[in-house]
Amino acid sequence: MSRTHHPADSARMPLVEALLQYERRKPASFHVPGHKRGAAYRNDPQVASWLGAVGLYDATELPGLDDLHDPQGAIAEAERLAADAFGSKRTFFLVGGSTVGNLAMIGAVCRSGDYVLMQRNAHKSAIHALMLSQAGAVFLPPEQDRESGLYTSPSPELIDVQLSKFPGTKAVFITNPNYFGMSADLRKIAEVVHKHGKPLLVDEAHGAHFGLDPLLPESALQCGADAVVQSTHKMLPAMTMGAMLHVGSDRVDERILKRLLGMLQSSSPSYPIMASLDYARAAAAQNRGNEQGAGPFREGLDAAHYFRERLRCRAGRFRILERAPDAGYTSLDPLKIAVYDAEARLTGYQLLTMLHEQGCDAEMADERHALLIFGMNSTRSDAEHLLDALQRIGSMNLSEKQEIRLKMTNILPLWSAASTQPVFFDADGVRKPAHLEGDPVAVEIERAVGLLSAEMVVPYPPGIPLLFPGERISSETASALARYRSDGAAVQGISDKSLRSILVWAGNDI
Amino acid sequence: MSRTHHPADSARMPLVEALLQYERRKPASFHVPGHKRGAAYRNDPQVASWLGAVGLYDATELPGLDDLHDPQGAIAEAERLAADAFGSKRTFFLVGGSTVGNLAMIGAVCRSGDYVLMQRNAHKSAIHALMLSQAGAVFLPPEQDRESGLYTSPSPELIDVQLSKFPGTKAVFITNPNYFGMSADLRKIAEVVHKHGKPLLVDEAHGAHFGLDPLLPESALQCGADAVVQSTHKMLPAMTMGAMLHVGSDRVDERILKRLLGMLQSSSPSYPIMASLDYARAAAAQNRGNEQGAGPFREGLDAAHYFRERLRCRAGRFRILERAPDAGYTSLDPLKIAVYDAEARLTGYQLLTMLHEQGCDAEMADERHALLIFGMNSTRSDAEHLLDALQRIGSMNLSEKQEIRLKMTNILPLWSAASTQPVFFDADGVRKPAHLEGDPVAVEIERAVGLLSAEMVVPYPPGIPLLFPGERISSETASALARYRSDGAAVQGISDKSLRSILVWAGNDI
Repeated sequence: MSRTHHPADSARMPLVEALLQYERRKPASFHVPGHKRGAAYRNDPQVASWLGAVGLYDATELPGLDDLHDPQGAIAEAERLAADAFGSKRTFFLVGGSTVGNLAMIGAVCRSGDYVLMQRNAHKSAIHALMLSQAGAVFLPPEQDRESGLYTSPSPELIDVQLSKFPGTKAVFITNPNYFGMSADLRKIAEVVHKHGKPLLVDEAHGAHFGLDPLLPESALQCGADAVVQSTHKMLPAMTMGAMLHVGSDRVDERILKRLLGMLQSSSPSYPIMASLDYARAAAAQNRGNEQGAGPFREGLDAAHYFRERLRCRAGRFRILERAPDAGYTSLDPLKIAVYDAEARLTGYQLLTMLHEQGCDAEMADERHALLIFGMNSTRSDAEHLLDALQRIGSMNLSEKQEIRLKMTNILPLWSAASTQPVFFDADGVRKPAHLEGDPVAVEIERAVGLLSAEMVVPYPPGIPLLFPGERISSETASALARYRSDGAAVQGISDKSLRSILVWAGNDI
Repeated sequence: MSRTHHPADSARMPLVEALLQYERRKPASFHVPGHKRGAAYRNDPQVASWLGAVGLYDATELPGLDDLHDPQGAIAEAERLAADAFGSKRTFFLVGGSTVGNLAMIGAVCRSGDYVLMQRNAHKSAIHALMLSQAGAVFLPPEQDRESGLYTSPSPELIDVQLSKFPGTKAVFITNPNYFGMSADLRKIAEVVHKHGKPLLVDEAHGAHFGLDPLLPESALQCGADAVVQSTHKMLPAMTMGAMLHVGSDRVDERILKRLLGMLQSSSPSYPIMASLDYARAAAAQNRGNEQGAGPFREGLDAAHYFRERLRCRAGRFRILERAPDAGYTSLDPLKIAVYDAEARLTGYQLLTMLHEQGCDAEMADERHALLIFGMNSTRSDAEHLLDALQRIGSMNLSEKQEIRLKMTNILPLWSAASTQPVFFDADGVRKPAHLEGDPVAVEIERAVGLLSAEMVVPYPPGIPLLFPGERISSETASALARYRSDGAAVQGISDKSLRSILVWAGNDI
């Protein structure tokens, strides 16, 4: 089959079609799954309408339905159409979410004892990948946006410096955009990484829709990333756990990726989830958005724009996080809207709860913001619903006992200094450096500068590890801990809750 | 919440109820997934009826919907009801199939450099678990059933001998039942394993229904297994990828299991799959089958029995594999029916294809048998459908050019000798023994006895590795290879397709 498809092909959904054809036969099932084409669900009024309906298509590797782990037919064709739509060399459908994508992507470049450069605020699956691969990371401090206190990616300059310092690194791992839709200058990062001859791996879990409309930021593949993981279920209409792993170049070996995915993913993958990936690609990429204003995202973008404008005009206490000219990021996803109470009487958490009570389910909250996500199928009526809810929340009497001070003190620029050596992991967590002996000992924080931490230290917010066990404690880290102590900040992981001492590994460093 | 539930509780489906309650609110979605409660699917006539229907329940970790990775509410309660129903100490819901269950179960007992005793015909996910854990296995030859040529489990006697020889093993890993529903004497195996103070891990992927009716074989938990993985989607009505990991005793650390599952499974698990696990437990375990003949499996068991009796009475060329008194197994799952052509004019593969053409989809085939799986929801009308299909296939004129000889020569008792040392794996495959240097060299098979193989040797059928790289070549193995050579059998993996030589690792053994 040719790699170059006719434009008309982009409307096709080969895997959806294969499942429809299978269902049309109405075969008698003498195979797994045990629900027998949904029959088990259709007698029960509680699940008939949904499990009974999808059960007809919850098939297995029957003739015509191909095999995810060795695709030759409908799945291979659906993956090729996705590769064309997203601009990859090869695309793998994932049924285990971006989690399995990150495990495979990092595993593909790291053998035991290897290390990568990784931003410190990576998703936990990236750390788990290091653990499973028995690999390490030099953690890079991200930039912080002053306006919101949110963290983005490390700067291209820092990446350049660290690549020079650590020429043995196997790759650079970046998360972009962040949960709030903030994107770094990924083109510049890709240039820097490629200048050093390394592959750029991007966790684009929150950006599966990027690059599909001129009003949306560029995608990681467009910026030159060598391998990219996307949660197709997050911002495109796939079922939950549906994701894709795109290979952008020969810098990442797709045969190793295939082998690892074959190890990590179910040998009985879900056909509805795979079909929803095929559907999501067709829905988002056919008649792709153009400068003339057409495209599948226009209704959702219009709804988000409408909401933003109306809230702005209202000039009430609820505001929207907007990108400042000196922001610590280069673009903001227009479909992600972080709302906050400019009078600081409601935390983000409280706002999320009150929105829920008003029938509007938000995505998440931090101390200050409630994050609302619009999608391809969001409408002006959704926006109205949200505006009404905020109106009602705003009009409630909140003066008594609701006055709160946001604990913004925890939001600090934590990492003025970058790591000086990789931290290595194994399946149990962080691997104890081989040259150190004996048990961890407690040392006053002020006297711990220069020593290797034996514990994980995670201030909340933002919940990003300040120290991994095995990391050297810099004077900046020690100062930050002293500041947390005087601020009474919440710090998890550290055994001395008074923040006076920290466990370090004894050995020739002390 | 109490661990002991009132019998009436077993009808409850806490997670299904939580999702129904969520849906009743009809909230506006400003969160992931991007299909916005299925709205994206409901405009497209091709997917509206199934993805659109289930999309309403394809939720995320919203208030009231709990969190699989740290369950406190509806998921915790659903898991507790499953633990009660299946008789475990603790049950974990899995959304990544038995695959992820095997990875976690083996990973929980093996650190890098540890090894287990494992039957040679284990599912590939068990080998992948060794690779990810950088662990090893002493492979145990399974018993072979003479009548069918099929392999079951190693004998309790052999397990006893090998446990004495390898007291350092971390566990014994058994697959029971096999794909065809044949079960070993698991009680005796559990006794032997516990006598040596080791945990028994059972891949019960094909036996999630065991123990739920007096007409079904006992379950691994009933036999005393310490940890058990079940594919709830295979023989019980869960959606594909829905599975459970049961902890039977303190011999396996459930905290480590929880941590590994948190690493290997998606951080956005599928709610429909989790809800289907809750449903499957309630459907199969409430009003559990009793001696008086009631129970949820009775209709399916009756359909299978009816089919078996009718085919027997007909006494035509299609026969059913039945358990002989001297069979290499102790019980056969009555819901698994292996049909074969007693005149040997059709292979199992051809039979499967012809059944498909007659509208009956079988589960799988080998050279001789086509395997048909009945379930809780199979009916006499399904049985009639199948009988008619076989009648039509039998009446077709197959005399010309259809005469074939089954290649039964490949089905040999391959492993008269058990392994003499563990084979160690890493993420790339088999780990080269540290004391060996240099590249693999080809040696005549007759002269290779006593040396370590550097390649994998897999005769088809049965597709079970005769040699893993790193295994010592016994005189029995060498004889088997010589026999394959004279029979012209299909052997994969070996580089010399003429089967005259084999690659061995050079080193102090040569």
